Amino acid sequence: MSSDIITMVHGSGGSATSELIESIFEKNFDNDTLSEMEDSAVVEGAPRFAVTTDSFVVKPLFFQGGDIGRLSICGTVNDLLMRGAVPKYITCGMILEEGASIDNLRRITESMAETAKEAGVEIVAGDTKVIEGNGGIIINTAGVGFVDEKLDIASGNARPGDKIIVSGNIGEHHAAILASRLGIETDIKSDCAPLVKIVHNLIAHRIRIHVLRDVTRGGLATVLKEIAGACGNNFMIKEELLPVTSMVKEFCGLLGLDPLYMGNEGKLVAIVHPEDEEAALDIIRHSTYGQDAVCIGEVVSGGDSASGNDRTSGNDCTSSKDHTSGSVILETLIGGRRELDVLQGEGLPRIC
Amino acid sequence: MSSDIITMVHGSGGSATSELIESIFEKNFDNDTLSEMEDSAVVEGAPRFAVTTDSFVVKPLFFQGGDIGRLSICGTVNDLLMRGAVPKYITCGMILEEGASIDNLRRITESMAETAKEAGVEIVAGDTKVIEGNGGIIINTAGVGFVDEKLDIASGNARPGDKIIVSGNIGEHHAAILASRLGIETDIKSDCAPLVKIVHNLIAHRIRIHVLRDVTRGGLATVLKEIAGACGNNFMIKEELLPVTSMVKEFCGLLGLDPLYMGNEGKLVAIVHPEDEEAALDIIRHSTYGQDAVCIGEVVSGGDSASGNDRTSGNDCTSSKDHTSGSVILETLIGGRRELDVLQGEGLPRIC
Repeated sequence: MSSDIITMVHGSGGSATSELIESIFEKNFDNDTLSEMEDSAVVEGAPRFAVTTDSFVVKPLFFQGGDIGRLSICGTVNDLLMRGAVPKYITCGMILEEGASIDNLRRITESMAETAKEAGVEIVAGDTKVIEGNGGIIINTAGVGFVDEKLDIASGNARPGDKIIVSGNIGEHHAAILASRLGIETDIKSDCAPLVKIVHNLIAHRIRIHVLRDVTRGGLATVLKEIAGACGNNFMIKEELLPVTSMVKEFCGLLGLDPLYMGNEGKLVAIVHPEDEEAALDIIRHSTYGQDAVCIGEVVSGGDSASGNDRTSGNDCTSSKDHTSGSVILETLIGGRRELDVLQGEGLPRIC
Repeated sequence: MSSDIITMVHGSGGSATSELIESIFEKNFDNDTLSEMEDSAVVEGAPRFAVTTDSFVVKPLFFQGGDIGRLSICGTVNDLLMRGAVPKYITCGMILEEGASIDNLRRITESMAETAKEAGVEIVAGDTKVIEGNGGIIINTAGVGFVDEKLDIASGNARPGDKIIVSGNIGEHHAAILASRLGIETDIKSDCAPLVKIVHNLIAHRIRIHVLRDVTRGGLATVLKEIAGACGNNFMIKEELLPVTSMVKEFCGLLGLDPLYMGNEGKLVAIVHPEDEEAALDIIRHSTYGQDAVCIGEVVSGGDSASGNDRTSGNDCTSSKDHTSGSVILETLIGGRRELDVLQGEGLPRIC
């Protein structure tokens, strides 16, 4: 590259686009399929597969514990894993603002290549566009994974009695991004990671997994509420069991944030058959990125299990008013009950 | 929706994001897979498939003959078709700038749904992000199509003697976008279209298709040069045979543009076995969007077929200097020869 920033000419589809692709993308995403430079990649298939897409607009591009490149692979790989799929192919749509640093683009691309290798996926197709702007970089990834025909993992499958496991500490990605944006010095790192090993090991050990969801935008509370809504049962979780590091707790205290609504990028919720709770916990804790896994509660029948809609500390648990099904009830440290809804309002913009 | 424009809250991943998805995307992309709202869609597979991605940043969002929604489906569907795939699944990544009109978003989404129906594809997964900006809308689509195991369509397959067919008039999308941006009144319409029927019919009639490429950014010249480079043979094409409407010719004359470097969004190049030329032309002309198909030239052996690198009218065709393989030679109207390279320089920004 003769220049060190992206200009409109890199989006022309002509020689400058080709040079950019060859010198940065092809070099890093080295594989035969991509090098063919055809309109689409032809790859080996499977009888059943999972498909997903995610765009990444995180600011800043580089943060403690990761960067937009690592995030763009982890996000899509994790979405595939949440249906029990083995992630296989990734496509990469780069949307570059004029003025983007080509050196940053190179580092981000290297990070994508490394993360793809770690996750066992191939980046098989790509596209590059340039828009006006201030040097920003946006990445869309879509992914395809193969799903075993015997597996049926979906939010609707959570049953009364099932145990709710979280694979590790919550709020870390959100806190790292916010700290970096506010210039607060902290050792909090984003948890951004591909959860391939955790899911692979659970499936290999025939754990009866009913639901898997990764905890991203909206945080644990939003994810739990969405699953509860899909399955029509209620979730009872205990505040004392929630995995939050003291660093994140302190950070949240300082800024008035609730870790339950803070996004992660390397944590999942697994809802499993009650008899498999201990085995599942043991497997996750021995898998990469799962060492802090805990069971935070269980699924109870919709409509008959919880009551009150008490966001204060009132402990009126025996009220006769039934919840509609699909509620998420948090038993607080002081014994109260608080019903959790999905995130309302803004959240943190451009967190992923 | 209580407000009529996109704000940061629509990108939170919380309740406002869900409302947007339900009221606009789910409503229009109506299908069971998408309605499940899981992290990824689980769909029926095939032994071999094609994967591709494309981001769309066209300005303006609505233009004569189409809009960014129709474009976002056609671009990805056509990329799948160019490997002989039957397009099946589409993912949709919406990147919305603050201030985007929700009414425009609705119209664009309706247009995507209509075009997907026309092309026979399902939109099975989606993602929405909001960024700062001035009301712009960017769409990434990725696609999966099934490929018959007996088919082998790729740029490297063009052989000496093969005929080079273009499915219709060139330059129209580019001219429509530019006219709209410059406020020039014209009847030129974008050719934006899914080429499913043309490709399906060619395959169904067992035409020996060696290469398929759609003509997009960079125009016909860039596409031909890329194919020639991939197969190592030379292409001889005749200016008198190039399909350009008089309206586009006039428009190009006015602005000093070369239709050979102007993008289309509903035209393809098919390189076929010479014995199949007439049959292929007949099939394409009887397929939707193929009525103006013509043969513009043929493939000749690399290194021994053409000479000169004469961009003026000098008619020194018999010079002893051989071309390196992979050249594209245009025989001009006045009998000269001009070697075509890929697009150099800027092209028109944000054409697709």
